[in-house]
Amino acid sequence: MADQQRILTGMRPTGQLHLGHYLGALENWIQMQHEYECFFLIADYQAMGDHLDDIGLIQRSVLEVATDWLAVGLDPEKSSFVIQSYVPEHAELTMFFSMLIPLNQHQRNPTLRAETAQLESESQSITLGFFNYPISQAADILLPKAHLVPVGEDQVAHIEYTRDVARRFNRLYGEVFPVPRARVGRVPRLVGTDGQAKMSKSLNNANPRMRATDPGVVEYNPAFLYHDAFNDNTDEVAELKERYSAGTVGDMEVKDRLVDAINRFLEPIRERRSWYEDHPDFVRDVLKAGTERERAIARQTIEDVRQAMQVVYT
Amino acid sequence: MADQQRILTGMRPTGQLHLGHYLGALENWIQMQHEYECFFLIADYQAMGDHLDDIGLIQRSVLEVATDWLAVGLDPEKSSFVIQSYVPEHAELTMFFSMLIPLNQHQRNPTLRAETAQLESESQSITLGFFNYPISQAADILLPKAHLVPVGEDQVAHIEYTRDVARRFNRLYGEVFPVPRARVGRVPRLVGTDGQAKMSKSLNNANPRMRATDPGVVEYNPAFLYHDAFNDNTDEVAELKERYSAGTVGDMEVKDRLVDAINRFLEPIRERRSWYEDHPDFVRDVLKAGTERERAIARQTIEDVRQAMQVVYT
Repeated sequence: MADQQRILTGMRPTGQLHLGHYLGALENWIQMQHEYECFFLIADYQAMGDHLDDIGLIQRSVLEVATDWLAVGLDPEKSSFVIQSYVPEHAELTMFFSMLIPLNQHQRNPTLRAETAQLESESQSITLGFFNYPISQAADILLPKAHLVPVGEDQVAHIEYTRDVARRFNRLYGEVFPVPRARVGRVPRLVGTDGQAKMSKSLNNANPRMRATDPGVVEYNPAFLYHDAFNDNTDEVAELKERYSAGTVGDMEVKDRLVDAINRFLEPIRERRSWYEDHPDFVRDVLKAGTERERAIARQTIEDVRQAMQVVYT
Repeated sequence: MADQQRILTGMRPTGQLHLGHYLGALENWIQMQHEYECFFLIADYQAMGDHLDDIGLIQRSVLEVATDWLAVGLDPEKSSFVIQSYVPEHAELTMFFSMLIPLNQHQRNPTLRAETAQLESESQSITLGFFNYPISQAADILLPKAHLVPVGEDQVAHIEYTRDVARRFNRLYGEVFPVPRARVGRVPRLVGTDGQAKMSKSLNNANPRMRATDPGVVEYNPAFLYHDAFNDNTDEVAELKERYSAGTVGDMEVKDRLVDAINRFLEPIRERRSWYEDHPDFVRDVLKAGTERERAIARQTIEDVRQAMQVVYT
């Protein structure tokens, strides 16, 4: 275990998971847990920043997210499920890091600028916590000294800020943090990995042909992306694609077959989910154990940071 | 003790204390500890924000500041000396509060604007930590649920931000925090209470008369402000003021007498300081005990905050 590389990734607890999460993130995570020591973070602080009007949603979602993770096959024996705000060292490391980062560099963060513009366009006011989230995210990743952060193809820039923080700290105070690398996973273009992906909306946005007899385009067609991801009957998928291109199958049938395939895919997940729903204490114990595992590492990291920065007095 | 009101105040550990600190703050603190339950904070986080180039100064200063506090007569049996960064709940409460405060309201904070302008005029770059310090200060004050914050006459506005945070939290989640009030103390105009006061500079800035035989103005004269504060020989002070107004005493003699008076004032402080310097373990124990006293309260406050915000999952 000692020479295993560490991974930190997570989700914000802001509602139930859906297929977009599976395709965008969980599918990768399930693979990763066999190769890496994984910390899966339930980022409740980050959810608070823009869910102040419904903070009860966060409370309900923490257990839901953990239940979903177990149901899809994340293994709490291999990996740690961590509640962000239950590890006070997250806040401490955020505080230490905030002292190192020039404000003007922080404000140039492209993700912060994009998400701020997005929220402002929806007339949502930005909180100070939201403004600070890139540094909080850097603390999340560096607290367990993660080597790798899984990201989608178009998200490599997202962890550049965290890499800057690690490099700056190491340059000022000595080598404490590995500079984490992005681990690029296959993530279909139509869904994000940030928990904001709206799978059903994407499907509804699929541009239907005017008539079922028109030849259709399979490539980038959301219905076929989901067939590829979830339909275990590959012969059926190949046949549907052929007929779709030739204009001999309607959108309705493509979608009906997708619903069947997804139900086949979901059946064992639903069964496992039902068991975990009936055993919430088991889920809570998984959260407690995972959070404690990260805390032990987190305490050591804070100790390393204090020694390196000479913030040791007594 | 239970019905005693609480006070939170503090200093940044950025060098040795001087007479300006006594006059601006410590004189009030020594009185306050008989009437209130006092928490005296050594604000090392806040010092880091603009002392990254010499963080060793902070480390050295923490013990120095505590030694000075003991030497001037702060009583560790009555009051708690607290190291800010040794109470992780400071960082946690800062994180929770940051989620409540709109960025644009934060940016309107007049103290932040003034200090930012000051630093920028000195070509110092602002860190994110410095930008966040008003919310960190609100967390410092509200963590022990302080009722009162001692401020100088011109500093009442400084705690308005903290009052806003307390009111906003209480309105959103129920009454958790007392809305702290400013306790205005006698603070001469020429020194601040922020640890930045430069007593000797102020004295050097005193506008001398051209000739010792010119009639002098006693009011707002720094030398006489310090005579009033430190010279226990009130007859001598009265006589000097009379002669100064009449132009029959020179600035040099006024200052010489002040030096004598200050030495008389400092003698017992120096003696006590010498003892504490020889007993650094005693000073460390005072810091440990005070920090632990605040931590016990801080843990309860964070528990109250979690219950009120429903940030309780397991």
